[in-house]
Amino acid sequence: MFALAIHGGAGALPRMQYTHGREQAYRQGLALALSAGQRVLAGDGCALDAVEAAVTVLEDDALFNAAHGAVLTLDGTVELDAAIMDGERLRAGAVASVRYVRNPVQLARRVLEDGRHVFLVGDGAERFAEDAGMTHVTNGYFITPYRLQQLAALKTHSHSVAALDEPPFGTVGAVARDRAGRLAAATSTGGTAGKLAGRVGDSPVIGAGTYADNESCAVSTTGHGEWFLRTVQAYDIAARMRYGGATLAEAVGASIEQRLPRLGASGGLIAIDHRGEIVMRYNTPAMFRASVRSGEAASIHID
Amino acid sequence: MFALAIHGGAGALPRMQYTHGREQAYRQGLALALSAGQRVLAGDGCALDAVEAAVTVLEDDALFNAAHGAVLTLDGTVELDAAIMDGERLRAGAVASVRYVRNPVQLARRVLEDGRHVFLVGDGAERFAEDAGMTHVTNGYFITPYRLQQLAALKTHSHSVAALDEPPFGTVGAVARDRAGRLAAATSTGGTAGKLAGRVGDSPVIGAGTYADNESCAVSTTGHGEWFLRTVQAYDIAARMRYGGATLAEAVGASIEQRLPRLGASGGLIAIDHRGEIVMRYNTPAMFRASVRSGEAASIHID
Repeated sequence: MFALAIHGGAGALPRMQYTHGREQAYRQGLALALSAGQRVLAGDGCALDAVEAAVTVLEDDALFNAAHGAVLTLDGTVELDAAIMDGERLRAGAVASVRYVRNPVQLARRVLEDGRHVFLVGDGAERFAEDAGMTHVTNGYFITPYRLQQLAALKTHSHSVAALDEPPFGTVGAVARDRAGRLAAATSTGGTAGKLAGRVGDSPVIGAGTYADNESCAVSTTGHGEWFLRTVQAYDIAARMRYGGATLAEAVGASIEQRLPRLGASGGLIAIDHRGEIVMRYNTPAMFRASVRSGEAASIHID
Repeated sequence: MFALAIHGGAGALPRMQYTHGREQAYRQGLALALSAGQRVLAGDGCALDAVEAAVTVLEDDALFNAAHGAVLTLDGTVELDAAIMDGERLRAGAVASVRYVRNPVQLARRVLEDGRHVFLVGDGAERFAEDAGMTHVTNGYFITPYRLQQLAALKTHSHSVAALDEPPFGTVGAVARDRAGRLAAATSTGGTAGKLAGRVGDSPVIGAGTYADNESCAVSTTGHGEWFLRTVQAYDIAARMRYGGATLAEAVGASIEQRLPRLGASGGLIAIDHRGEIVMRYNTPAMFRASVRSGEAASIHID
């Protein structure tokens, strides 16, 4: 048995209804990413390869806030964060404030495989990518006309994102359980629109935005990154299972529906446990998400 | 009642015995830092101010691996990481890969007070510091002859630190409980000697190297940063208390003496709970540490 879940961000519903075309594009983007990960798992590949494959597809899709199509900093540049974790041996790789690497999740994977360090940021991360022979792109490759408009609107509306026709949190992520029972998680993001240069959110932080441990669960979050850093969100789910004896659904429910709202924090997460149980929950009006288990049909939701 | 604990790193014992003079210098450095924090708490200051004051003194002391006197990257430069967290409101500030800010813990505090973001790295963190009017120094200010020798020795002995007359982990940190029952934690480090540029360890990562929550405990860690990132070390202590009903001593014991050795991870941590109970534990041969509680004498240990 294998299982896979992915997300494309959680947030407010658009003020205007999506056009049918736009809705279809989001659904198709999620379906393609899900298939990429599913193909790995169906071919007896490992969970780590599956989450990397799924997140790579979402990074390349301009509709989501990761790599190509990511949000802009206040300076008008793109700075990318990503992490990946192997629940089998607790290996992890994370990168932040990356500007010239086409697929940050692949760079995070290289950091994991290299093994010397877990977390590389900025120029040092770029140099590591160069030494590893990874594809180098210009920062302009990531920038879309839509994100330029978004930043202009943000600056006009004094940093309110309410007028924007999209969920404010478009982070992407994946969690998987492969046939051998191994868990893995990956997350990738451009962060928050109009962020200060150098800002790192929860996504690349092991324990906050990304976590995987075969003994408990794999988690990828999306939402108010600053709050998810302070609540150590992803590991909080694992710890409720490890130390509190909660099931995955109980752990996620208590965290997302009780603790976070009390703190005024919004967002969501996807999680999977060693039995392949999938939980996808959010306290925002919507979360883009999709999942599949071996022998079952895929499900895709954008509400 | 108030209580304060600080550390100056955990690691192997030196191959050669310390000279009496050097031992006295370490003790004096710890005593000065402890006094700085104690003064704040005795004057009814808050835990957050106390940990910032104590860590600032350790950052300025060339004997410890933080700010002035920090270890060098493989490139021969200094890159600094720090974090601070307020257990009262779960506010946090963290910075990494900082090269020109005299006291990184003070920059982390500014990030916390600013409130827009939690975590800033590299050039963006420097720009934030500049905008905040903080003291700018050259990278050379941090570099001591001793660290130049250490790096040369590292390169000669193919990355082994065994020949070096000092504990390999010289990270500094503080945890405090003030008279109002508020907890806080702060950690500052130059990371690991000979690290790749851009490498971020556990110290500035909320949940890994630094964590504080009035409802459980405040923690500052020192040790094998890559492992402490993967195990989400600081929050693991808090979670064992929150969800497992462990006391502080039980939580720290289970984590440092059982889980970490099984994983092959070494290091230590200092922690404090809401009653002002202090626990300082390590699975290395030594940890530099000191603590004091209101109405009691200070204790200082370098073994």
